[in-house]
Amino acid sequence: MKLDDDSEEHTLATSPPPTRAPGRPRSREADEAILAAALDLLIERGAGWASIEQVARRAGVTRATVYRRFPTLTDLLVSAVEWEYRDVDPGSMDWPDIDSMVTAWAGHLGRPRARKLIRRLYSTVDDLPELLRAYHQAHGSHRGLAVRTTLERARAAGQLPPDSDPEILQQMLSGAALQHLAAHPDTTGPEEVRSYFLAILGQVGLQTSPVPRRSTAR
Amino acid sequence: MKLDDDSEEHTLATSPPPTRAPGRPRSREADEAILAAALDLLIERGAGWASIEQVARRAGVTRATVYRRFPTLTDLLVSAVEWEYRDVDPGSMDWPDIDSMVTAWAGHLGRPRARKLIRRLYSTVDDLPELLRAYHQAHGSHRGLAVRTTLERARAAGQLPPDSDPEILQQMLSGAALQHLAAHPDTTGPEEVRSYFLAILGQVGLQTSPVPRRSTAR
Repeated sequence: MKLDDDSEEHTLATSPPPTRAPGRPRSREADEAILAAALDLLIERGAGWASIEQVARRAGVTRATVYRRFPTLTDLLVSAVEWEYRDVDPGSMDWPDIDSMVTAWAGHLGRPRARKLIRRLYSTVDDLPELLRAYHQAHGSHRGLAVRTTLERARAAGQLPPDSDPEILQQMLSGAALQHLAAHPDTTGPEEVRSYFLAILGQVGLQTSPVPRRSTAR
Repeated sequence: MKLDDDSEEHTLATSPPPTRAPGRPRSREADEAILAAALDLLIERGAGWASIEQVARRAGVTRATVYRRFPTLTDLLVSAVEWEYRDVDPGSMDWPDIDSMVTAWAGHLGRPRARKLIRRLYSTVDDLPELLRAYHQAHGSHRGLAVRTTLERARAAGQLPPDSDPEILQQMLSGAALQHLAAHPDTTGPEEVRSYFLAILGQVGLQTSPVPRRSTAR
């Protein structure tokens, strides 16, 4: 695959070939190939081992093509993280109850690729804090707000004890996710992740049996 | 500082100089200089950036001196982690109650160097799982057992609800530590770490007021 768009730099005066749709598709294809290659390298080898040269080779473009878009490797990796989470829809995190929330997490944390990426983002916190920051802005901050809202709802519905503190519980659950990522195999699948979180929440007094005034909760 | 002991290889037939104590002190000094240099590089730059050459330079020895003791960088880093935790005394983790346990953790997790090292060990889980394994064998497994014992004692003493599960709570607390390491500054100090863990434990029903039948608990 050769997605290099260097040629476009030298033929600005000519029209694109008639078979090409508008919007510089070859350029967009190169963008996506570069971002996908950067993300793959980040996941497989870690930020410390990625380089513009490797990304270019894997994407099938020249280094110049990469540098024109991303002046530094950090710029490129941050963009790759933003790109990975580009479809995050905060509305989809409006979970009606804890069970829906835990099921959604299990779907995410049950996927080996997602697990590896999150570990890489946390692993670079001392060397490239920009990556974890990009993840939080693109995904983590929306999720944190949605988790607190869901916990407040559960408390109001009597599923959690009245003295539960959503802020503290959210930190606890984020920690439980990190612990799972560090200590459980990547292949256990969503059901195991779901049981894990429900066991943790059981320790803070979550009532998993149907609550009369919220008969749709489970 | 020149701790190189290469010369000893070529003078095995001669006695050590009279000013030197027995036990090949120069060799032991070189061992410790190498392990300390490896640990410093691991903490400062991460395992991915450490090399035998850099360790040798920082320790003031030749590469050959390092290779003679540690055939690979992984051997060296594993030994450095074991060396760092060589004085771990499982007996010192026989905490009488949760308050003592949390105070001990706060002392450890309140130290920036310890925090950086633990982050590095978890950061290499995908590339050098040997390091995290060495940490668990030298420190984590003793601590895990001690935490479960302390939680069982606290439950028996009525400080935790009767349906508390020490196994699950231990996972939760390990996760809380990882979350603190990832999301809190390294400079907050032991008191903040202590409050953080007590807040988490409050959510699982820890009674922090003195319990009548364990008047020495606090």
